[in-house]
Amino acid sequence: MRKNDLPHVVIVGGGFGGLMAARAFNRAAVRVTLIDRTNHHLFQPLLYQVAMAGLSPAEIAAPIRSILRRQKNITVLLDEAESVSLRQNQLILRDRILDYDYLILATGGKTSYFGHDQWERFAPGLKDLSDAVEIRRRVLLAFEAAEKESDPDLKRELLTFVVVGGGPTGVELAGAIAELAKFVLARDFRRIDPKSAEILLLEGGSRILSSFAPSLSEKAVNHLNDLGVRVRTGTAVTDIDATGVTLGEERIRAATVIWGAGIRATDLTGTLGVPVDRAGRILIEPDLSLPGFPNTFAIGDMTYFEQNGKPLPGVSQVAMQMGRLAAQNILNDMSGSARQTFNYNDKGSMATIGRSAAIAEIGKIRLSGFPAWMAWLLVHIWFLIGFRNRFTVMFNWAWSYFTYQRGARLITEDQNRER
Amino acid sequence: MRKNDLPHVVIVGGGFGGLMAARAFNRAAVRVTLIDRTNHHLFQPLLYQVAMAGLSPAEIAAPIRSILRRQKNITVLLDEAESVSLRQNQLILRDRILDYDYLILATGGKTSYFGHDQWERFAPGLKDLSDAVEIRRRVLLAFEAAEKESDPDLKRELLTFVVVGGGPTGVELAGAIAELAKFVLARDFRRIDPKSAEILLLEGGSRILSSFAPSLSEKAVNHLNDLGVRVRTGTAVTDIDATGVTLGEERIRAATVIWGAGIRATDLTGTLGVPVDRAGRILIEPDLSLPGFPNTFAIGDMTYFEQNGKPLPGVSQVAMQMGRLAAQNILNDMSGSARQTFNYNDKGSMATIGRSAAIAEIGKIRLSGFPAWMAWLLVHIWFLIGFRNRFTVMFNWAWSYFTYQRGARLITEDQNRER
Repeated sequence: MRKNDLPHVVIVGGGFGGLMAARAFNRAAVRVTLIDRTNHHLFQPLLYQVAMAGLSPAEIAAPIRSILRRQKNITVLLDEAESVSLRQNQLILRDRILDYDYLILATGGKTSYFGHDQWERFAPGLKDLSDAVEIRRRVLLAFEAAEKESDPDLKRELLTFVVVGGGPTGVELAGAIAELAKFVLARDFRRIDPKSAEILLLEGGSRILSSFAPSLSEKAVNHLNDLGVRVRTGTAVTDIDATGVTLGEERIRAATVIWGAGIRATDLTGTLGVPVDRAGRILIEPDLSLPGFPNTFAIGDMTYFEQNGKPLPGVSQVAMQMGRLAAQNILNDMSGSARQTFNYNDKGSMATIGRSAAIAEIGKIRLSGFPAWMAWLLVHIWFLIGFRNRFTVMFNWAWSYFTYQRGARLITEDQNRER
Repeated sequence: MRKNDLPHVVIVGGGFGGLMAARAFNRAAVRVTLIDRTNHHLFQPLLYQVAMAGLSPAEIAAPIRSILRRQKNITVLLDEAESVSLRQNQLILRDRILDYDYLILATGGKTSYFGHDQWERFAPGLKDLSDAVEIRRRVLLAFEAAEKESDPDLKRELLTFVVVGGGPTGVELAGAIAELAKFVLARDFRRIDPKSAEILLLEGGSRILSSFAPSLSEKAVNHLNDLGVRVRTGTAVTDIDATGVTLGEERIRAATVIWGAGIRATDLTGTLGVPVDRAGRILIEPDLSLPGFPNTFAIGDMTYFEQNGKPLPGVSQVAMQMGRLAAQNILNDMSGSARQTFNYNDKGSMATIGRSAAIAEIGKIRLSGFPAWMAWLLVHIWFLIGFRNRFTVMFNWAWSYFTYQRGARLITEDQNRER
């Protein structure tokens, strides 16, 4: 069989799901093409550390080519999927059209403002490296501007930080801003006291981290309070603009607002003509294929999948396990075996709040405080792809932990720079 | 004496010169304000390593506030100097006006296209972190685009890299592109052979690195040839556009052109009304003050200063020594001592060509190859500010050296990204 006669599997997206699918084809008799619109795989669970100047972008990202270098049946292309002709088995990219025998869609999610896209300018979300660098820029610039401001009201506005959304991302960001102000910046300014910064975490529901047990949510609130973060639940944001946030009748003046509230599927799902939910997520079959198109699979954050009557969460574990099964089902087709249905094996979940504080829920085990944080640290360093990143991240963390310094406090991409 | 009665020294620029001046005021009875338009000091000699994905931006930059944290008489402000009222002793910033008793200007240089500013779009220079990230993006994207290109002529154009200017920056960049192609990317692509990339170094004069001895220039050419860089001297660039470079009658098609040819003083010097040379550099007095304004000093790349009938080079050593003397002369004024005139103590110069290859000239000692590279490495790591950066840079280098990997191969700020 000539190489070009081998079945062509196209994977769109080099996140956790796409990468796991690609790896599952190692040594298989297929040609694999992996497409991503960036050149790097991003270790998203640590993205908030880039936003808070603890890590550099390169420390949580690795070139996809490099990760897959040894797998000779894979070609990596930098391109962006615009739509799919499901009936013609064609993927339409920005630069070309690709024919496929099997397609695995793994393009993930993007920030959703629930119909208020005009809020994006004032309250960036945190989904990729550019977002993280932009948030880092805004937070650091707010302290710089406060140092120069003589009007006490404006100074207060500059030193108020609002994080919208009490999920894991929002909690991590709020905790990290508090640490940045309290430990890192405290000694660097002359005219302001960064410790006086006010950090607010707003949650619409009745408790933060609602996917965890109520007792752990409570522990998280305590940890956040210890760091100086005020947590407000049951608050509905009705407007966001350049000077703050409106909650019905109430107005909170804040120069920096960060959006951690919503995720929806990337726009690609809307072009397919298959059923999607309100967040644009594809309602996939039990074998992870698209309804009516058994040679096309979708996995991870862009999908909606129920198990035991409950939707699966949008976490990397789900995407990775789905990636493995989608690849396995393609290999099963080729070997004439029956396809398997997806069954998520929940290995537990964790959220970090700050230095030495986290919560973790693994089956019936519930951890909080320092033990949970150690578990979080080990798991995250372990899963960071590549020894080098593992090492430098560990070094940076140890350094930050013992010295209260941060390495990546750069304000770059200043709009006002000379050219 | 109340604190506000102390003489107010304003320093504009947190580069090597400005930082040295600031440090020279340690424990002195003055109030110092240091202004910079970025929040970080940049270790410019390693900027080419960021452009070539060897180091991350944060590894060669440190927050100015953090560097000067312990010096209690200094306030650091993030702002940009727009002009100076020399007669009123006022510095006009973007956001405010500052009164000063003494002023030290240390704003450095910027890329000069010798009247062809339209070339900037096609051939970025390398002066700050944004430049470096932009060059990294272009170089990495050229390889990505070549991997997708089927037309052989266009593929050749995408794999041709032209560096204009045979000074230290141009030589470092050309050598680093060659290494990136030959060692780092070689195994990652399927459809192109990155080793086949053509790298051209164009120099207008009769030899590259003309500030060094002719024998060292020759050695550098040999090193570059070994790496696969073609060096062409006596070539005058007459045009640059999106598809390449024109040299009189000759046309070189190249998707990536980098400008390492010219530096001029920042625009601030033009607003002062004092004599400047063609490159906008201030013709300063022997005590480093501005002609007619003894309480205002200018130092470093923004100045023109002759010693023994020869202009001083635009290197960090000159800026640092000038910074120290400008501060000393202000302290001399305060203590009633006479001012000193500037006398540059040349500690030698170095240029690196690539892995294990450099040239160095220290007095009458001339080194090349591995010994020069070791000297270069030690000096540069030593002078990198702060232990942490020193450590991580050393680690990254050791890692790159032994594994032929690079850590910072990120393409960020893609103009075509989804939002």
